[in-house]
Amino acid sequence: MLKQYCQEKGKIVDHALAAFVPSENVYPPKIFEAMRYSLFAGGKRLRPILLMAAADSIGGKGSDYLNVACGLEMIHTYSLIHDDLPAMDDDDYRRGKLTSHKVFGEGMAILAGDGLLTAAFTVMLAQPGVQADVLIKVIGEISNAAGALGMIGGQVIDLSSEGEKIDIDTLSYMHQAKTGALFQAAVRAGAQLAGGAEWQIASLTEYAKQYGLAFQITDDILDVTGTQEKIGKPVGSDVKNHKATYVTLYSLGKAQDMANQAVTNALQALKQFGQEADVLRELVRALLTRDN
Amino acid sequence: MLKQYCQEKGKIVDHALAAFVPSENVYPPKIFEAMRYSLFAGGKRLRPILLMAAADSIGGKGSDYLNVACGLEMIHTYSLIHDDLPAMDDDDYRRGKLTSHKVFGEGMAILAGDGLLTAAFTVMLAQPGVQADVLIKVIGEISNAAGALGMIGGQVIDLSSEGEKIDIDTLSYMHQAKTGALFQAAVRAGAQLAGGAEWQIASLTEYAKQYGLAFQITDDILDVTGTQEKIGKPVGSDVKNHKATYVTLYSLGKAQDMANQAVTNALQALKQFGQEADVLRELVRALLTRDN
Repeated sequence: MLKQYCQEKGKIVDHALAAFVPSENVYPPKIFEAMRYSLFAGGKRLRPILLMAAADSIGGKGSDYLNVACGLEMIHTYSLIHDDLPAMDDDDYRRGKLTSHKVFGEGMAILAGDGLLTAAFTVMLAQPGVQADVLIKVIGEISNAAGALGMIGGQVIDLSSEGEKIDIDTLSYMHQAKTGALFQAAVRAGAQLAGGAEWQIASLTEYAKQYGLAFQITDDILDVTGTQEKIGKPVGSDVKNHKATYVTLYSLGKAQDMANQAVTNALQALKQFGQEADVLRELVRALLTRDN
Repeated sequence: MLKQYCQEKGKIVDHALAAFVPSENVYPPKIFEAMRYSLFAGGKRLRPILLMAAADSIGGKGSDYLNVACGLEMIHTYSLIHDDLPAMDDDDYRRGKLTSHKVFGEGMAILAGDGLLTAAFTVMLAQPGVQADVLIKVIGEISNAAGALGMIGGQVIDLSSEGEKIDIDTLSYMHQAKTGALFQAAVRAGAQLAGGAEWQIASLTEYAKQYGLAFQITDDILDVTGTQEKIGKPVGSDVKNHKATYVTLYSLGKAQDMANQAVTNALQALKQFGQEADVLRELVRALLTRDN
């Protein structure tokens, strides 16, 4: 059921993204080409799907909020383009495809990222069918999650701690900021756009926190147990790069225990939700068996 | 009078910017330091001032819209940081100060730009005292002006035409996109936030178009007639870099005529406005005698 849901919603998101970032009748065409290259480079559309599943979980209709959902994907994609730049992680490949700066050059890659970040707001602000004050609140939260106190701040810590030893508090702050904050904004956006009650929004926020934690720990585990073919980068690259991870700071076994606990906590946060929340439950359970 | 207005409004903007991008109790501190370094590197606050003067010109109170005004300055500042990067214009100095990547490194400069762009939206979305639907429309216009069809698109053309001959149509499109679009968004934002009537918004839009044109032509003239001390970069650098400008494509005399005409047109657009629009009139007239 989860696979079907993700495929179905993924298609809807792809279709909407293609319309939001068109390739025809645009000038200058190169920048749109670069923006689309990364947007359609095999992303799993996890943030849009989390938004939609959160809206569904309280009886809303997730696909009514495609503008905000796609905005989240555009923000995520811009962050990958900039993270891959030579001045940052200097990665030539992502998901087995050449990174933006390898294809379009560094200057254009920076601009493609800037373009996607800016367009994300254009697209989100054009979200139809939502009360204007609710929309402002939701996009405000997303901008906060994506900013210097959130995703960008996490990348700053990542960048400045390369090759240095960081402690577990810094590591967990970094991940919460770099990845967790946008997951949380996605889930909260779905809940708020669909008109969730306070208790529902609070429960979904807790779910999202635990989801983010489980996502990051299993990401670190995959770096050790995954295959290059599936994860799209050399196995053990974190260890090789002396990167602090949940596995290197604890152990593989302990990291697996922690991931299990986070999933249990996420499910617990949904205990008052009916079967409408089954997709969210499956999404977090799936992290324990992910291979990419 | 203009000088006093600009000094007074500049101070208000500086004060608000310092509050919107704080230096205390923020984590990680480095990114905020980098964002503030460029925000307070001697900018003339032209876009916030245009917004405020436009609101004033129709009987509003420009300083009521500091969030949106500061958002414009943050967007402008991020664009300068990214334009100066080695992969773009590769400039070591701006306004006589070291550029962001020379002080903080390339990775941090990219992130400081990203942080300012993102924070611009956080700050604008928090604008108090404005109807939510009006605010959404205004910020949507600003995001469009800043995006791939506006400012970023202009930079793409600039980047890809370096050392190449471009015709006058491409040049004027490039400038309109790179600089004009955000000027226009600033003026329109002030008009719309202050509740301007359709005819007022239309007149101010025309004013802004002519202002942008006059700004760019006089910028090209300054490259030839200015002093390094005042313009903060070597005189004649456009000619040296084989950059197409209004002066190189026409002549100095013809460019001066064109600047005069644009200023006349801008004043003409304000002909039905009272003395409340005097600041806007002085702002555009001042372009003809600018020395930086």
